[in-house]
Amino acid sequence: MSVFERVMEIASRRGFFWPSCSDVYSNYPAGLWSYGPLGARLIEKITNLWRRIAVNHGAYELITPNMMSVRVFEASGHTKHFSDRFVECKKCHSRFRVEMLLAEHVDRTSLENITDAEADRLIRELNIKCPRCGSRNFTEVARFNLMFTTRVGAKGGEIAVLRPETTQGSVVELKHVIRSMRSKLPVILYQQGSAFRNEISPRLGLVRLREFHMMELHIFFDPENPGFQKEVESIRHYKLRFLKLEDRDSGKITEMEVGEALREGYTINTLITYWLAVVQKFFNEALCIPLERLRYKELSDRERAHYAAAHWDLECYTQDLGWIEVANNAYRTDYDIKGHMKLSGEDLTVDVDGKKIIPHMYEPSIGIDRTILNLLLISYTDDGERRYLRLPRHLAPVDVGVLPLVKRDGLDRVAREIAEELKLEFYVEYDDRGTIGRRYRRLDEIGTPVCVTVDYETLEDNTVTLRDRDGMNQVRVPRSQLADKVRLFLSGSPLEKLGEPLA
Amino acid sequence: MSVFERVMEIASRRGFFWPSCSDVYSNYPAGLWSYGPLGARLIEKITNLWRRIAVNHGAYELITPNMMSVRVFEASGHTKHFSDRFVECKKCHSRFRVEMLLAEHVDRTSLENITDAEADRLIRELNIKCPRCGSRNFTEVARFNLMFTTRVGAKGGEIAVLRPETTQGSVVELKHVIRSMRSKLPVILYQQGSAFRNEISPRLGLVRLREFHMMELHIFFDPENPGFQKEVESIRHYKLRFLKLEDRDSGKITEMEVGEALREGYTINTLITYWLAVVQKFFNEALCIPLERLRYKELSDRERAHYAAAHWDLECYTQDLGWIEVANNAYRTDYDIKGHMKLSGEDLTVDVDGKKIIPHMYEPSIGIDRTILNLLLISYTDDGERRYLRLPRHLAPVDVGVLPLVKRDGLDRVAREIAEELKLEFYVEYDDRGTIGRRYRRLDEIGTPVCVTVDYETLEDNTVTLRDRDGMNQVRVPRSQLADKVRLFLSGSPLEKLGEPLA
Repeated sequence: MSVFERVMEIASRRGFFWPSCSDVYSNYPAGLWSYGPLGARLIEKITNLWRRIAVNHGAYELITPNMMSVRVFEASGHTKHFSDRFVECKKCHSRFRVEMLLAEHVDRTSLENITDAEADRLIRELNIKCPRCGSRNFTEVARFNLMFTTRVGAKGGEIAVLRPETTQGSVVELKHVIRSMRSKLPVILYQQGSAFRNEISPRLGLVRLREFHMMELHIFFDPENPGFQKEVESIRHYKLRFLKLEDRDSGKITEMEVGEALREGYTINTLITYWLAVVQKFFNEALCIPLERLRYKELSDRERAHYAAAHWDLECYTQDLGWIEVANNAYRTDYDIKGHMKLSGEDLTVDVDGKKIIPHMYEPSIGIDRTILNLLLISYTDDGERRYLRLPRHLAPVDVGVLPLVKRDGLDRVAREIAEELKLEFYVEYDDRGTIGRRYRRLDEIGTPVCVTVDYETLEDNTVTLRDRDGMNQVRVPRSQLADKVRLFLSGSPLEKLGEPLA
Repeated sequence: MSVFERVMEIASRRGFFWPSCSDVYSNYPAGLWSYGPLGARLIEKITNLWRRIAVNHGAYELITPNMMSVRVFEASGHTKHFSDRFVECKKCHSRFRVEMLLAEHVDRTSLENITDAEADRLIRELNIKCPRCGSRNFTEVARFNLMFTTRVGAKGGEIAVLRPETTQGSVVELKHVIRSMRSKLPVILYQQGSAFRNEISPRLGLVRLREFHMMELHIFFDPENPGFQKEVESIRHYKLRFLKLEDRDSGKITEMEVGEALREGYTINTLITYWLAVVQKFFNEALCIPLERLRYKELSDRERAHYAAAHWDLECYTQDLGWIEVANNAYRTDYDIKGHMKLSGEDLTVDVDGKKIIPHMYEPSIGIDRTILNLLLISYTDDGERRYLRLPRHLAPVDVGVLPLVKRDGLDRVAREIAEELKLEFYVEYDDRGTIGRRYRRLDEIGTPVCVTVDYETLEDNTVTLRDRDGMNQVRVPRSQLADKVRLFLSGSPLEKLGEPLA
């Protein structure tokens, strides 16, 4: 079993996430997943960390509908450009993404650069077989728009689209927010929510979903005066990690100080440079993903989405998935607003010191599902004796386990009392079923960083043990200081500093 | 202007909520609204309060997709019971209800019992004409109901539905949660999210939306042993307010103690009785809506949804809207699970002490949008001199305003410092534009409970004034105690207890 398979098994069995409806309906549409209690906690903790960063930068939160008129996506270019290429097997009528069929034969970068006609030719020349039925007879390459549509209103009505990104909601409400908050550029809008893409072949658990979760910032600015000068100055020696376009083949990562990236013009302006750093720091410092697992992949003209003048995918590395995108960072210029101005005829310019300008937009967009999957893959640890999740302490869905050594002699009663007290501040799991060893293993498996154990000594001197998930070492602490000790441990203090070590 | 109109005007102008895309596209589909920064804060505060209650009762949070296979809603009875059958004229594309087209030819009782195929056959055999254009060419019988549908997959694929409630997500994942959390009945699942209904006539701002926000509890229990005995006992003298079925005409409200409602069997069992009390207490005590504005309306057999054996709408009263539903509370019995067992053939029973039972379900479901609208309508105050929102202090989107008396002599610098300090704990708005009087009014208008003012005295003795939104009275407090004083004020302390009153 690969680490990926192990993690997916734990995720389903222990209540992180699993394919929707899998207990009830077979052949349920793929790419729709449910998060259980532990997964919902992970989402809560991760989004709270990012939201705090956004709010501390003066971001305004917006909540816009999942469903928008198709006009919005005509204006944004999505009805025209937001599609995948596919061919259909003429025998079994299965459809396959061109990129998927050719992946074994042509490297990815070249693939994104070939035309439809070239793809047709390659499929014929390489004598590609249908992965399902083996036939070699395919239709010509066609394009399939990835947006889900429905109709609003009783009689056909208007076509509505399930948003493929939260972006357009921010774009169309920008003027309203600026007016009501009396704010000036740069303006940061924050949205967290669902997005929808009718993927041809959803796959790899949370990697390619039909409904997924994102947290996006939409930062609107005056290109003449983008802002964030002071902020970028304060981190000018921070190192960004890039995979430059010319280093695709070698995979060489270029570390570039913020100040240098800016001086060389590689990262365009102060605002974009600053936010590239914030996002990298978020994944590294807040989510504790090691720097060597992170890189910004520069996208080529052809790889970029239709709206982007520059685009870096923040990628995360795991052995099972390789480098995959966890956040995309697109400089969308004035493309979106211009599109809406053109289609609607409305004036969407913004006043800057008496001048009307069309704001530019930079968009750091974090995929929540992929972030969670990568966190679990990275945390998964098999040391030969135990299999467990070495999640960063502050991200674990259960903060602390509370266990009576045995379920008798009043130990369980005391342990329950302690669990209730700790619940005021932490996510707590009380467990008295099975041997103490098995209970530790169960809590380790979901990444619970620390366990409190109530034993016979507790009844005598009101002390309990704290056990570290990673080292399995234990210390003894007074019950009266328990909440303080747990809080210190969760915020990073080594266990041995918190009490008397146990033999 | 009515209070409703005033509130809608403030909501749009100040950034609570407004019709989506209203700056850009005219004739945009109705019933889709955007929340701005202040509305997003209200949602955050309200949902946090309810989530805490849920979590304190041991609820498990779930996050399930907005998009589900149509099979789910076939099983739940929604495709059947929320739908009309129609055919479309292939020439003029008008749509007609089948029952209407055939009404002259077939009697009504038979109509309800004929299948779609039979209806198709009848329309052909009877040579029915399109009432609009006279054509005899119709599509096959299809169904129209309040559910939005789309298609999943590259090639037509499966029909998917945008959920009209979060409920089915909980129902289909119940077994998975019980298994992964090793839990026993009663089990409480908590979902917060969007739901969608293709309303024919969306209206009244946030009252009837096509996409709306809900927070729902799905409480699954053994009907032989529902639980919550201890809890219900602890509040047995708490008074529930009912509009009983027989008092519809008079509007008489019956106050009934929890113990009495239970004894008389009016509220069925301990679990339902307890949760009726929790929801009423939430609206009254946590959201501060006066009891006289709240009542549980009992629904009749015909008014109840197809799945409900008992149903009370929690209604809230405002002068402009009258009594409107803010939470529905349905006893859905085993209807939903049974439906899924029948359609899927899967065993969805739950083990209770070795016996297999089909759990029953009780569902308190709170409409977030309507709750917010009612809160604003109730809070709106016009005392002849000022128009402002008298929101409960802990719910206001801005906790505290910070204002320099004038924008010079360093007062603005000190005020900015104070604003930054307070931001660590509170939602703060700094404002130095315009006269101090106008700034107070602006903050009053959005319900900001307290303002901190920095004046010349501050420079001398490091004290500032605190001003109460409601009484407009002020006290002087040391800057060093400011965060404590603001915290005390927001949690309900009268202003005059917090400092030296100003003349």
